[in-house]
Amino acid sequence: MAGGGGVAPTPLLKDQLDIVIPTIRNLDFLEMWRPFFQPYHLIIVQDGDPSKIIEVPEGFDYELYNRNDINRILGPKASCISFKDSACRCFGYMVSKKKYIYTIDDDCFVAKDPSGKDINALEQHIKNLLCPSTPYFFNTLYDPYRDGADFVRGYPFSLREGAPTAVSHGLWLNIPDYDAPTQLVKPRERNTRYVDAVMTIPKGTLFPMCGMNLAFDRELIGPAMYFGLMGDGQPIGRYDDMWAGWCTKVICDHLGLGIKTGLPYIWHSKASNPFVNLKKEYKGIYWQEEMIPFFQSVVLPKECTTVQHCYIELAKQVKTKLANVDPYFTKLADAMVTWTEAWDELNPSGEAPADTSNGKAK
Amino acid sequence: MAGGGGVAPTPLLKDQLDIVIPTIRNLDFLEMWRPFFQPYHLIIVQDGDPSKIIEVPEGFDYELYNRNDINRILGPKASCISFKDSACRCFGYMVSKKKYIYTIDDDCFVAKDPSGKDINALEQHIKNLLCPSTPYFFNTLYDPYRDGADFVRGYPFSLREGAPTAVSHGLWLNIPDYDAPTQLVKPRERNTRYVDAVMTIPKGTLFPMCGMNLAFDRELIGPAMYFGLMGDGQPIGRYDDMWAGWCTKVICDHLGLGIKTGLPYIWHSKASNPFVNLKKEYKGIYWQEEMIPFFQSVVLPKECTTVQHCYIELAKQVKTKLANVDPYFTKLADAMVTWTEAWDELNPSGEAPADTSNGKAK
Repeated sequence: MAGGGGVAPTPLLKDQLDIVIPTIRNLDFLEMWRPFFQPYHLIIVQDGDPSKIIEVPEGFDYELYNRNDINRILGPKASCISFKDSACRCFGYMVSKKKYIYTIDDDCFVAKDPSGKDINALEQHIKNLLCPSTPYFFNTLYDPYRDGADFVRGYPFSLREGAPTAVSHGLWLNIPDYDAPTQLVKPRERNTRYVDAVMTIPKGTLFPMCGMNLAFDRELIGPAMYFGLMGDGQPIGRYDDMWAGWCTKVICDHLGLGIKTGLPYIWHSKASNPFVNLKKEYKGIYWQEEMIPFFQSVVLPKECTTVQHCYIELAKQVKTKLANVDPYFTKLADAMVTWTEAWDELNPSGEAPADTSNGKAK
Repeated sequence: MAGGGGVAPTPLLKDQLDIVIPTIRNLDFLEMWRPFFQPYHLIIVQDGDPSKIIEVPEGFDYELYNRNDINRILGPKASCISFKDSACRCFGYMVSKKKYIYTIDDDCFVAKDPSGKDINALEQHIKNLLCPSTPYFFNTLYDPYRDGADFVRGYPFSLREGAPTAVSHGLWLNIPDYDAPTQLVKPRERNTRYVDAVMTIPKGTLFPMCGMNLAFDRELIGPAMYFGLMGDGQPIGRYDDMWAGWCTKVICDHLGLGIKTGLPYIWHSKASNPFVNLKKEYKGIYWQEEMIPFFQSVVLPKECTTVQHCYIELAKQVKTKLANVDPYFTKLADAMVTWTEAWDELNPSGEAPADTSNGKAK
């Protein structure tokens, strides 16, 4: 980057990252993101009526898939991709040929840091993904790899190399990501607290992964990023990202990969309708009380050394252990297998995610 | 608190909290803390030469113990209290009759928040201790009980009551709490990042607990807050708080108690000498590689339903499993038992810590 004055530096990972956006409307929100997103390739997954024309602002490099495209590309396996739900975004992860994915909702705008500067969310996600995680021991000064920070006294030296980071989970200013009951109880709550931290979710701990502002390493964890069966024809919604997060977390823990959360913030502009959300969520709210203990106790066999193997094994366990909660889980377990098959079809072996076994699998 | 204009509100827990300060010098640092500490009772544990007079600024309510006092009060059991090391502070925890302890080093000053306001560290610790922890599931918006925050979508409702908070671990601006090797490598690093967060250390995750700025509920966890054998006559130093933290964490996990870290910050004024520190730490640096796996795999039997029972059991396991690392651990395990006996002697049954078993013990 020996460019002279005035020449912008090449954006990080320009040719190695796709931005995946699920949408049902014109993508005017991209105008605000232009300085940060324009150098990257976009994968737009159009939800709902495929005959609707989605307008994309000039100058962006993109490919767009609607339901007809998904059906054409996946054939019968298209059944694993949700319809009329932003869970359809995971189709974008599958068709991408890049190493990294950033996914963002179309009601998310550029947030400002406390100094008033626009936050380049994508750049922070890339930083998070390119430096290690620390899942095996908690560092009280947060991410030890950030400028001005390090491992504190008492942090074992043997753990200071960290683990490869597979996921970077960003947060939201303004409208917090609350469930319908909390939205109903606190309709006016806004998130105004800018917490200047990135941290690793410790091994063995589950977290609620939100898909609004999320980046991951597709080669390390892509096949686990399935957003499940939600929306049209399904008994549940708004658990797509949660499901993906729980599956991803137990697989990352098993394979010795890390997940970071914290910075960057985006500005979440608009609360979704809590009454509509309640209808989508209510089964999830009580199923979740069974799902969490299930994921907390999942053990993957040592022989599972790739994400695909782990994911197929997890699907098996979902079928055995959650089917008694509701027949939906049998359908979901089958869809998990279909998803894996579709993934492998679109990502044949040469380009398949690397075997990430590195002796850290438990 | 119906006081009229100008009447300061009664400080929180005024009669239920002692401030424990280990020191070898005059306590001029208290001047800066006067607005926050003066209403509370201080327990000063004088380290080193007992003939030295420690000056305490006027107007503070305190009791002071030197080595002669410790020997007189504990008799032969005084052997469990370290000499010439700030680990002696745990004697103060033992002689306190209050429910809560705050302990602070005498080189810690009042820090300022980003708006320039003096931080009342004690008040924040009390807030942390009085609201629950969330050790069983990670909340991405940090402490859900803080103003302006809550549990995010996907957080199981059955876990939203949280667990009682036993420990509040505060942080440090200016001089970070680094080990000697890191101090040597980064002599000029200062912590300038104010992270506006409090969070729970998840169950099953160990952390490096620093004793510089620490509060805890003596009734819930006091007997586990033993700072070990350090300093004079011992092969190791600067692992006193770490040892207490690891013991405390596994016992909290077993008993269903929570530990919080983050706010409040104090201003740590002066880096200790890294060469001296290296001499104190070097055995700990490699012993730690055995200690951490030990604590990560400790299982306490269901029958252990009080902190004392847990601690005695832990002492047994230290003796069995760490004695092969160095004979020091046999001595330490014995001292752990002595400590518990001394604790029970000074805190007879009527005032003994409550049985915290509440069905959450594993």
